[in-house]
Amino acid sequence: MAISEFVYRRRVQFPETDASGIVHFTNFFKYVEEAEHAMWRAAGLTVYDRMREITWPRVAASFEFRKPLRFEDEFDVRLRIVELRDKSLRYEALLTKDGENLAIGSLTIVCATRRPGEPMKATTIPADISSRFEVFRTS
Amino acid sequence: MAISEFVYRRRVQFPETDASGIVHFTNFFKYVEEAEHAMWRAAGLTVYDRMREITWPRVAASFEFRKPLRFEDEFDVRLRIVELRDKSLRYEALLTKDGENLAIGSLTIVCATRRPGEPMKATTIPADISSRFEVFRTS
Amino acid sequence: MAISEFVYRRRVQFPETDASGIVHFTNFFKYVEEAEHAMWRAAGLTVYDRMREITWPRVAASFEFRKPLRFEDEFDVRLRIVELRDKSLRYEALLTKDGENLAIGSLTIVCATRRPGEPMKATTIPADISSRFEVFRTS
Amino acid sequence: MAISEFVYRRRVQFPETDASGIVHFTNFFKYVEEAEHAMWRAAGLTVYDRMREITWPRVAASFEFRKPLRFEDEFDVRLRIVELRDKSLRYEALLTKDGENLAIGSLTIVCATRRPGEPMKATTIPADISSRFEVFRTS
Repeated sequence: MAISEFVYRRRVQFPETDASGIVHFTNFFKYVEEAEHAMWRAAGLTVYDRMREITWPRVAASFEFRKPLRFEDEFDVRLRIVELRDKSLRYEALLTKDGENLAIGSLTIVCATRRPGEPMKATTIPADISSRFEVFRTS
Repeated sequence: MAISEFVYRRRVQFPETDASGIVHFTNFFKYVEEAEHAMWRAAGLTVYDRMREITWPRVAASFEFRKPLRFEDEFDVRLRIVELRDKSLRYEALLTKDGENLAIGSLTIVCATRRPGEPMKATTIPADISSRFEVFRTS
Repeated sequence: MAISEFVYRRRVQFPETDASGIVHFTNFFKYVEEAEHAMWRAAGLTVYDRMREITWPRVAASFEFRKPLRFEDEFDVRLRIVELRDKSLRYEALLTKDGENLAIGSLTIVCATRRPGEPMKATTIPADISSRFEVFRTS
Repeated sequence: MAISEFVYRRRVQFPETDASGIVHFTNFFKYVEEAEHAMWRAAGLTVYDRMREITWPRVAASFEFRKPLRFEDEFDVRLRIVELRDKSLRYEALLTKDGENLAIGSLTIVCATRRPGEPMKATTIPADISSRFEVFRTS
């Protein structure tokens, strides 16, 4: 039942727009990842936790786009962890502007070992990390 | 039954990588759109067809990532139109390198009117455009 | 001798890094443009002022890079208007982190008319716009 | 007096444009770096040569912009090494389309050691690398 949503406010920057006058769709995925990293920092997790010995490759990403964003628009990414498994987790992200839903996305990441010269391999999320996610999890 | 796949060869450029040493996942979506535009040019369709009076907003995009790409890798985007409807179409894209599957994606676009000061509105794909897609359609 | 410097604080986002582990140099130019737009908003100027009938093409841009930025670094762009001419203006930008100079850049923009079907043409900066820049000008 | 120019042909991709309808200026710098890497590959140098033990930070970059590029434009980057020093080299890049000059840029890079946990340090360009550049040098 706990509170679970992390809200990240962002303004559209000019290079994120394209010649059709709106934000290029690939930036919506960037916005979600920015919100993810802001959420991790809010949980006390920094780059060292995720980039020294473990890494977090993205294994799935999707978006449905309903309304466009334009230059200088301010919007929110409402990010929730909707699945927290042994080795992976999945976010859902709702982008809103002035109370209106613009797009809804999903991002699944895996915890993987990172050893020079070896391929990445899925591993159990360390307990001291997963415990910090609990506060953000929808339940 | 019909030939349907358009193959777009691409090399990874340096700014497409990130500090984890691999291509940032958002670029996979850019690669699919590049392949789409190359396919349109191969079909004799240019920017004027799609950006004067009609526009093609993306309404859904998704990817599953299996293997990473690295700087200077050469890879193929194998693009197919898997749905061609009255007002929309959907692509599937398989990214491969040296015969190995790296990622599989889907992109749905809508044909929309583009009038200054008005919101975009879905419209029927002009017959002279849809007829050019037929050759690329899987059937 | 007026106050002149506008300070824009920013955090490095992950896709701005590259496989060498540092921020790709092209993003330094993006940071300066972001700071420019934030400065304009601080001066009460919005997208309408600059994108309806006039536009501001960049005619020169340069940077000298001394120290790198890394993922999650927080830094400042210290932006000043160092030349304000009839039809153009030039910014200087100093990027600093924890009081240390990282890079110094310059950006020159021109005020141009924007009419459909015609090439852009340099024009006098409207007085109600240039007057708002005065507060930021070094003197 | 040797031949010295490396020509890299490129087409503008959609996300490289912005809401003013032209290519965002930061992409001109990306085009030069792409041309640089293509030149290196043409000289038989690959990512291993530049990213294992040595790295090539950019220390200065500049551009003057005269004419814009638009979506789907094909253009050339005409790249020359104009200075080849002990530890650094400088490129000049002329961007042209249909024989017309669009922009002219300069990029200076330094050869640096790359050891984990240590700051980058300028070092002499290995002879087997610099010898490969000779063919591209203006003289």
